[in-house]
Amino acid sequence: MKPTGNAKIGGRRGGKPPQRPGPAMILIEPQLGENIGAVARAMLNFGLAEMAIVNPRDGWPNEKAIAMASGATVVLDRARLAATTTQALAGFNYVLAMTARPRESLLPVFDPRAAAAETKERIDRGERCAVMLGAERAGLSNEDVACADGVISIPVNPAFASLNIAQAAVVFAYEWAIADGRAPAPADLAVAPQATKEQFEGFIGQLFDALDAARYFYPPEKRETMQRKLRTAFARAGLTEGEVRTLRGVVKALGAKQARD
Amino acid sequence: MKPTGNAKIGGRRGGKPPQRPGPAMILIEPQLGENIGAVARAMLNFGLAEMAIVNPRDGWPNEKAIAMASGATVVLDRARLAATTTQALAGFNYVLAMTARPRESLLPVFDPRAAAAETKERIDRGERCAVMLGAERAGLSNEDVACADGVISIPVNPAFASLNIAQAAVVFAYEWAIADGRAPAPADLAVAPQATKEQFEGFIGQLFDALDAARYFYPPEKRETMQRKLRTAFARAGLTEGEVRTLRGVVKALGAKQARD
Repeated sequence: MKPTGNAKIGGRRGGKPPQRPGPAMILIEPQLGENIGAVARAMLNFGLAEMAIVNPRDGWPNEKAIAMASGATVVLDRARLAATTTQALAGFNYVLAMTARPRESLLPVFDPRAAAAETKERIDRGERCAVMLGAERAGLSNEDVACADGVISIPVNPAFASLNIAQAAVVFAYEWAIADGRAPAPADLAVAPQATKEQFEGFIGQLFDALDAARYFYPPEKRETMQRKLRTAFARAGLTEGEVRTLRGVVKALGAKQARD
Repeated sequence: MKPTGNAKIGGRRGGKPPQRPGPAMILIEPQLGENIGAVARAMLNFGLAEMAIVNPRDGWPNEKAIAMASGATVVLDRARLAATTTQALAGFNYVLAMTARPRESLLPVFDPRAAAAETKERIDRGERCAVMLGAERAGLSNEDVACADGVISIPVNPAFASLNIAQAAVVFAYEWAIADGRAPAPADLAVAPQATKEQFEGFIGQLFDALDAARYFYPPEKRETMQRKLRTAFARAGLTEGEVRTLRGVVKALGAKQARD
């Protein structure tokens, strides 16, 4: 069962922005250009293209961001710079803050899946939505979180909860793509159909005949059990028509060799 | 509604490995130490600690991996080095290959959620499971994929499908944490309870009285509609007892000022 398809995680790179609207990502005072670039790449991987950046530490544009974006330059080129969180949020109807479990927050708390569903619902009825991400070290300030309508809390290992901002971004973006129905279900994949029962039984019959010829089924009282075991093992493989043909060739070749021995 | 909780994405860092077994991540010929470190950090963020590395381009140990792991050194310290994919896979019962949509693969294809569920089921019945990730540029070779029992395909934007390996790792690790029930549901969070209806109505009554005193409800035939609008707006906020108390103070203060004016 050797796959012949493309074995890369991804291949094509493109600069085209997605056509359908999605939530924006707003980075508040990010420190490393690499992280800005990694967020841009993660966004475009899942069909998001609108980024805003509040007061980036190392200025803008940033060469390291461009390098790390690996071609997602359309996101960086269109990124909106803002001096303050308030300015960056001005045009949005609904904003979620990505933050650790807020123990005493009075804002609604969503896991990434619920946050994506909520965002999707609001975007579908015409609201502009955004997700805020804090700086690498300090995260979002309480003041920034207070500007949001809710909090996204990623369920991390409590003993090692410090998530890279691009990692936090990709988790939300992934859930967004699923909520938005952009994600093709595996069932959509063109997988070769399983062989028909007639084809499968043809192979099993040939195999058993060959094994009979080789006096494999011994002692005779175990014959039935041995055959059932073999049949089950092959059945579980879910063989395709091509694989059945291949296996018939294998049995034939082995049988022919045996006849010569 | 100002949250007083921790506004960082994460805070505590720890080196303790998780107690319950989870799938391993196997990196095949990774090029950049940064990516190995980022994968380690993502793994530990979601409770995974077993890593194997086949033939890392820049040798091992790798300083850049340690820096990028941001404290997830327990994963790197225990990482197993292997010379070949076969060697790395030897002890596992069930292995999934993270790869792009395999158009003609005959292996079963899982999205990350289904892959996590399948892995969880197998680990619960005692199988050792692993996920293979390919090199940054080339991804997994067809030969490597052919060693797997199935493929994990992340549903990415087809126009920009090249996912960073640490990003691919975090998507699976996140789904694993949810499938394994490590992820606390948002409902588990200690959120202040909403005010009782009696408390809420006490506030609304006080507000309407104050507005009556200020002759706000004009013209009289609109009184009912105006009151309903106000009530709905406050109801939707899901006010806590503390917030209701605060708002009662606000109404009282404004009313007192008005009485003075």
